[in-house]
Amino acid sequence: MKQTTLPFAGAFAALSLTATSVAQEQPSMSLEAMADATLTQDTIAWDFVEGITTEVGPRQAGTEAEARARDWAMAWLTKNGFQNVANEPFEMETWVPGDIHRAEITAPFPQPLTVQPLGSSAATPEGGIEAELVEFESFEELLAAPDGSLAGKIAYVSHEMRVSMDGSHYGQFGLPRFAGPTVAANKGAAAILIKSIGTDYHRNPHTGTTRWGDSATPIPAAALSLPDAANLERMFDRAGDRPLTLRLELNPRSLGTTMSGNVVGEIVGRNPELPPVLLACHIDSWWNAPGAFDDGAGCGIIAAAALHVSHTGQPLRTIRVLFAGAEEVGLIGSTAYSEAHIDEPIAVGIESDFGADRIWRFESNFRETNPDLHDKIRLAVARFGVANSSVVATGGADLNIVRDQEGAIIDLQQDGTRYFDYHHTPDDTLDKIDPEQLRQNVAVWTQVVGILANEERSIKTGGMIPSAPDIMQE
Amino acid sequence: MKQTTLPFAGAFAALSLTATSVAQEQPSMSLEAMADATLTQDTIAWDFVEGITTEVGPRQAGTEAEARARDWAMAWLTKNGFQNVANEPFEMETWVPGDIHRAEITAPFPQPLTVQPLGSSAATPEGGIEAELVEFESFEELLAAPDGSLAGKIAYVSHEMRVSMDGSHYGQFGLPRFAGPTVAANKGAAAILIKSIGTDYHRNPHTGTTRWGDSATPIPAAALSLPDAANLERMFDRAGDRPLTLRLELNPRSLGTTMSGNVVGEIVGRNPELPPVLLACHIDSWWNAPGAFDDGAGCGIIAAAALHVSHTGQPLRTIRVLFAGAEEVGLIGSTAYSEAHIDEPIAVGIESDFGADRIWRFESNFRETNPDLHDKIRLAVARFGVANSSVVATGGADLNIVRDQEGAIIDLQQDGTRYFDYHHTPDDTLDKIDPEQLRQNVAVWTQVVGILANEERSIKTGGMIPSAPDIMQE
Repeated sequence: MKQTTLPFAGAFAALSLTATSVAQEQPSMSLEAMADATLTQDTIAWDFVEGITTEVGPRQAGTEAEARARDWAMAWLTKNGFQNVANEPFEMETWVPGDIHRAEITAPFPQPLTVQPLGSSAATPEGGIEAELVEFESFEELLAAPDGSLAGKIAYVSHEMRVSMDGSHYGQFGLPRFAGPTVAANKGAAAILIKSIGTDYHRNPHTGTTRWGDSATPIPAAALSLPDAANLERMFDRAGDRPLTLRLELNPRSLGTTMSGNVVGEIVGRNPELPPVLLACHIDSWWNAPGAFDDGAGCGIIAAAALHVSHTGQPLRTIRVLFAGAEEVGLIGSTAYSEAHIDEPIAVGIESDFGADRIWRFESNFRETNPDLHDKIRLAVARFGVANSSVVATGGADLNIVRDQEGAIIDLQQDGTRYFDYHHTPDDTLDKIDPEQLRQNVAVWTQVVGILANEERSIKTGGMIPSAPDIMQE
Repeated sequence: MKQTTLPFAGAFAALSLTATSVAQEQPSMSLEAMADATLTQDTIAWDFVEGITTEVGPRQAGTEAEARARDWAMAWLTKNGFQNVANEPFEMETWVPGDIHRAEITAPFPQPLTVQPLGSSAATPEGGIEAELVEFESFEELLAAPDGSLAGKIAYVSHEMRVSMDGSHYGQFGLPRFAGPTVAANKGAAAILIKSIGTDYHRNPHTGTTRWGDSATPIPAAALSLPDAANLERMFDRAGDRPLTLRLELNPRSLGTTMSGNVVGEIVGRNPELPPVLLACHIDSWWNAPGAFDDGAGCGIIAAAALHVSHTGQPLRTIRVLFAGAEEVGLIGSTAYSEAHIDEPIAVGIESDFGADRIWRFESNFRETNPDLHDKIRLAVARFGVANSSVVATGGADLNIVRDQEGAIIDLQQDGTRYFDYHHTPDDTLDKIDPEQLRQNVAVWTQVVGILANEERSIKTGGMIPSAPDIMQE
């Protein structure tokens, strides 16, 4: 690797030994020793995320770029020794952002603003629309506006999101994006502009889906970068009684029905009859970034963990990785996977989709029903700086099948302090990943997946599994 | 001020007392007491930079936006009590960037790249050009390429710029931008792409001027963001023998001859016959940002210092502020000012054009010719954490007149650690300014300008000034 100015490249460049080679040299390496080795030596997760961001780049759901990502991922899984590698295709309605994303204040302080459309935004007419901007300091204030009061106007909705390690601010302060466009449309707005749902200070808007309610006709909907939002709010303060007018031009469009797909691969267990351990991530990204944090890293982490476990000896249960398609635009791949496989029990599901920073908290949904296993895992990850939690795990976006089956779920919570600096922005690039924290992730995952894949009993209940009596009595 | 998530807003919002009101309450306040008060209480510099970034925004040289900035600045100077406020117009050849700035790798790893044109870049044909990319790891490597070897190809030039407190890396590692386009054009290149001359990790390219040599026919020239440059260099590594091809489309154009101008204002001294103290900054910015660091802050700092000095009593010498036009595109305003006023001696020149972070070093060009004054200033600014330097001050871009007159120059060196994170990028926005460091700047400037404006003798030599004997004998 050429010397670069990347913040973490130095730390990474020092590595040359892969955990794979460690295992090959020491085939009897214990799970614990393997997890410890990955902490300082894993290169598999980095190889995946560097590869997909460099050789594929942005991979918007339903597009040709996402298809290239599937091909790339299947080749990578096969090359790295996964079995039963497959693409499970599904159809979807595909929206693409177009290439005109322009906004400018036309009075009283004319200047351009940096915007990007929200996913499923309507287009403006060619040449754009120009209308008065109406400021709302929160989603709740927008909600309180009288019906029809926004007719012919453009709503601007702000929020007070702050950095939160657990990402919990996203739910509440994300409402201007999740629901704001529908509310504004229903009140007659010609368009909506939101302060980006993020925590950074760069001229990179945060896109993301919005949910159009059944009653709403989609309107043009865009996110302002955070510095632009601060500037716009100062303009409102300085304009006094003078109205602010905005010209907005967006040209997103629908491609109609196109194909997406879920990529799967397996480390086949000694007893393939036992319900598998499902490790999930998503392979699509938004169009505006190569998706390093979201979610190239997640796919790299789960794949690396599965391989490291396999290098300690064939696991009892099959470990299946699911690289879901079309997550960003509404969990379409996760839903399709659940529909196709709902009758095939999953032992336990874990997802990685929150960047690449360190894991700090362990949660399960079987702390009360299988306290022995919960405690075993808790104790096994403590040496990596991961603490127990009383929060009941609910799993991520790509675990629909496990929730639908009411199965066992684990959440390995990552440090989200930086996550919403990059989330859904052009800035979600490889240089943001800290190799040291990424390796901690892989180490914790390796430890946890190794325990789960060798667990004889039901993970949810701790009870015997009737379908697999023979191997459980070995 | 509404509560915001800006990093420094909290520190700023706590202030309400202006240094002006302090002086009005205590008309006999000493210069030292005023400088100390500005350190914690100045709001004038912030008011200027907030105002121009919010109410004007980007103000590219020679455009209507720069004309609005001049009008805004003249109104601000007049409102704040400056005298002899004027616009001194000049003609210039004006280049504008257009609105199509597209680049994409077309093989072997198709994906878009984030670029912006360099100032005075040529346009591509409509629809763009597509050609093989040739990688150069440094300007020197480009220079060594055989003549004609780039015929029909696009040059990519990298560099190894790092953070430097004194900004010294800019000179050497800026060569890919300053001179790369001319060298590439002379070797037959169809276009040139450079790694941004900057030190950040965001998807915001750094634009800036390039100097077309007399022998060169301008070609399309663009800067890649730093994360894109890192990604492109990984692509070269992974492509092996396969050529990388790039499609580039840029539509900058010339507006022909348009008007720009220098804005001046004065605090008239007790003896207007004495050569004035000249404080300089520039009012234009690049099109892609509201120019908070470069150079809205600089104009705010010099104006605030002049006002604070005036509030300690009318100074002996006139203090003149020069907000130069058209600096970014080749110091055109500075040159025009020197040509127009070369016969009017300037006592001393100081410029602020390096962001808004703290001043850490004091330099003059009269340390040997007027050691008493150099030492007086050195001792006066030490309490603000500013150290002496043996470097001979050469002044900034907007001090052409002082250099042309071989006059006295002071450099108040600012901490440039963050400067090239934002320089010439869309990210040069108000939220980057730390009010505390900005106030330290104003305090140091107030102290220094107050000494200079009340100095009876020649600043360069310490000798008597023959043209003003009366007042000097008071």
